[in-house]
Amino acid sequence: MNPIDETIAAIAPLDEAAMRDARDHQARLTKPPGSLGVLEEVSIRLAGLAGHCPPPPPEPAAVAVFAADHGVHAQGVTPWPREVTAQMVANFLAGGAVVNAFAAQVGATVSVVDVGVAADLEPAPALLRRKIAPGTADMTVGPAMTMDEVRGAVGVGIDVARGLVSDGYRCLITGDMGIANTTASAALIAAFTGLPPDRVTGRGTGVDDAVHAHKVEIVRTALARHGLPAGEGADPLEVLAAVGGLEHAALAGFVLGAAALRVPVVLDGVIAGAAALAAAALCPDAVGACVAGHRSAEPGHGAAITSLGLRPLVDLELRLGEGTGALLALPLVQGAVRVLHEVATFDSAGVSGKDAERP
Amino acid sequence: MNPIDETIAAIAPLDEAAMRDARDHQARLTKPPGSLGVLEEVSIRLAGLAGHCPPPPPEPAAVAVFAADHGVHAQGVTPWPREVTAQMVANFLAGGAVVNAFAAQVGATVSVVDVGVAADLEPAPALLRRKIAPGTADMTVGPAMTMDEVRGAVGVGIDVARGLVSDGYRCLITGDMGIANTTASAALIAAFTGLPPDRVTGRGTGVDDAVHAHKVEIVRTALARHGLPAGEGADPLEVLAAVGGLEHAALAGFVLGAAALRVPVVLDGVIAGAAALAAAALCPDAVGACVAGHRSAEPGHGAAITSLGLRPLVDLELRLGEGTGALLALPLVQGAVRVLHEVATFDSAGVSGKDAERP
Repeated sequence: MNPIDETIAAIAPLDEAAMRDARDHQARLTKPPGSLGVLEEVSIRLAGLAGHCPPPPPEPAAVAVFAADHGVHAQGVTPWPREVTAQMVANFLAGGAVVNAFAAQVGATVSVVDVGVAADLEPAPALLRRKIAPGTADMTVGPAMTMDEVRGAVGVGIDVARGLVSDGYRCLITGDMGIANTTASAALIAAFTGLPPDRVTGRGTGVDDAVHAHKVEIVRTALARHGLPAGEGADPLEVLAAVGGLEHAALAGFVLGAAALRVPVVLDGVIAGAAALAAAALCPDAVGACVAGHRSAEPGHGAAITSLGLRPLVDLELRLGEGTGALLALPLVQGAVRVLHEVATFDSAGVSGKDAERP
Repeated sequence: MNPIDETIAAIAPLDEAAMRDARDHQARLTKPPGSLGVLEEVSIRLAGLAGHCPPPPPEPAAVAVFAADHGVHAQGVTPWPREVTAQMVANFLAGGAVVNAFAAQVGATVSVVDVGVAADLEPAPALLRRKIAPGTADMTVGPAMTMDEVRGAVGVGIDVARGLVSDGYRCLITGDMGIANTTASAALIAAFTGLPPDRVTGRGTGVDDAVHAHKVEIVRTALARHGLPAGEGADPLEVLAAVGGLEHAALAGFVLGAAALRVPVVLDGVIAGAAALAAAALCPDAVGACVAGHRSAEPGHGAAITSLGLRPLVDLELRLGEGTGALLALPLVQGAVRVLHEVATFDSAGVSGKDAERP
């Protein structure tokens, strides 16, 4: 078996018995039943992922920022020059970006993965040089990637997940950088959900009405060019090849790799959401490892997480990417699990229950 | 001047120049303008509170859990026995509650303030014994507190805020414990916002339809008993005396104390929201020090924060209290400020701007 099929074969559903244990344990804790809202569900899912309750603390955590360029940039979908991808990678490596500040705040490590930046990058301690190609081709003209490139990029994501887990990380966080990547994300989301381009194409880093309308047209053109959405039987790797980015393919692999190792992966915004749709299309059980870190301001992101059946934890109109929204969610995920480890039960604390009954 | 008036006199509006500096600085950082959404506004307000940009990091942080009992418990507004207040205080002091787990997660210190628990509490290192009365009187029968009790409890809150700031804490977090305190909160919110009792009275720790309907009637009865809402000219301390709790009065003082010292205070849920309405009625500029940590599942809480003009940071259907929602927001607040300290500008990082122009 090739590494992708091998990884998919290792992914199993969430463990129902462990989830039941976690639900029962939540009901015994010294708090009104259900009073931790969405976080109770997070703790139960992570118990199901671990296969026991309480699940291991999701720490230490590492964010992997997958960086790549996009051929569709040539179509004028963004006012930002392409070289900003490489410049921002340098900024990440120098510790000067928001992803670095947020990672420092929540105690996560930042790695940057060059899976497809259109520039030669100097070696640096936090840089993983795994370039598959110097950016994608223009999806409005032909496939963005060859099938070999897609498989290679998915393999990079799997490798990065494996490497981080073998380094001791117990929570993975998706990050991304790539000028024009919201255009490729919109095309992927339209292809995987069947929603029309104007419903899933947003303003990215902040384009005006005219550029936005043009961006919708470019997504529509690309989808038509490749006969997407192709319906039920479509090969998710072919969809990635047609309109995806190298970082999308790598992020899909990252999700699959985390799921195979039963380590949670906190998804950032619309780029991760598009990639997670690809991972879910390859292996629906991979979604069990995913936590939606936040809801981004991009309309396609809401469509993606709804389709994945996930509920975002942070909703603050962020639209930065890099992994920033997922990093802000990390203490919430860690807090949800910590409750299962540290909070006393009604019995152990000698606290009376509702109507003097103890649950 | 008495300590309350003295504290109010020390509260000034947010500094406009510092807020302008923060807004300008946000625009120069290596990210699309506005891409940090709500967190940019948080960072700007905290600069205004500090009077300079960047504002000091809001750390270390301390949560003060104000605990008290409520005479209205006798009216059957909750299925939980009154002694749970003291039992949960013991749980906080033993480190076994959710507030302890979340505080440990985000690096905050927990103090418990007995401002009105209806039981004698043993001394403990984390317990501040500042009891004003062993619980309030039943607000459906007469005023919940005397004016002396209200002033005493507000003074306790001011003292606790001052004490924590003099101990070096640079971010205060509201916490609360008191069986039946959502009933008093609903009455306060109705009194301060003018909204009808059925709009602001929730299910608290999870009451059924019958108890909820009864709770709404109790709030209606108490408001009628005291001629509330009393309109524009009402003395906020008299409103607190009529239908408030000792912890509401203390929390109002805690907010005033933080605002006077220009230290941010992260509000938890509906109890803190009701108390902040009282603080805002006493001194509208006190709201400048407040960050709404989360939106609780209680309907009155949404009404309170809307009336205060605040936007909650975490929205996960929590309805636990104790300070738990505010603690989860702490890393978001700290991250927002950290961005102003640590993120590179387009110029400093050599990153090209939009359309190759730099903002």
